[in-house]
Amino acid sequence: MSDCLFCKIFKKEISSRIVYEDNEIMAFEDINPQAPVHLLIIPAKHIESINDIKEEDKELIGKMFLIAKKIAKEKGLSESGYRTIFNTGKDAGQAVFHIHLHLLGGRKMSWPPG
Amino acid sequence: MSDCLFCKIFKKEISSRIVYEDNEIMAFEDINPQAPVHLLIIPAKHIESINDIKEEDKELIGKMFLIAKKIAKEKGLSESGYRTIFNTGKDAGQAVFHIHLHLLGGRKMSWPPG
Repeated sequence: MSDCLFCKIFKKEISSRIVYEDNEIMAFEDINPQAPVHLLIIPAKHIESINDIKEEDKELIGKMFLIAKKIAKEKGLSESGYRTIFNTGKDAGQAVFHIHLHLLGGRKMSWPPG
Repeated sequence: MSDCLFCKIFKKEISSRIVYEDNEIMAFEDINPQAPVHLLIIPAKHIESINDIKEEDKELIGKMFLIAKKIAKEKGLSESGYRTIFNTGKDAGQAVFHIHLHLLGGRKMSWPPG
């Protein structure tokens, strides 16, 4: 998707503060952080939202959480805790239609979650 | 885990308002809903938190999101939107140490997510 912001970030056509990357998944700092640690974890594959995931994407979605776990550990959040969020569609405030997992930690999170 | 609330719910030793079930995954209504639709999606497998997921759990985690997508569609949330959340540990307010995916929809969700 040539006009997708997160495709461009994955391809490094747009710069970001990268904290993890492999051939399938990248993690980078949210430019409008809502917690001391606020990262976005994205796949290279352009999937618009959770509404659009398919059977074949199961492992990829699961891998995004393995990466979240790994980054949380590196950032010292494993013990204190962290919240991971996918927003889907308008009511959830999804801003970019390329799936991205928000990882927030480093402060006490309240409930409800927005 | 004989003393785990969500293991007992999966085995129907404790009743819940079930909205989906198969041999691996169940979804039921949160008893303290924070949105018009607020469901919990759990695996049968006892995994304490996202800190404890392993390579072998990738497909299971991915399947939880396929179920979330399916339920969101059935509940009429696909178009309006919904938020999906895993809380891990104390800062995130994780209350039961058996992974559960919160699915919230039916209202506008604010940002930050708690």
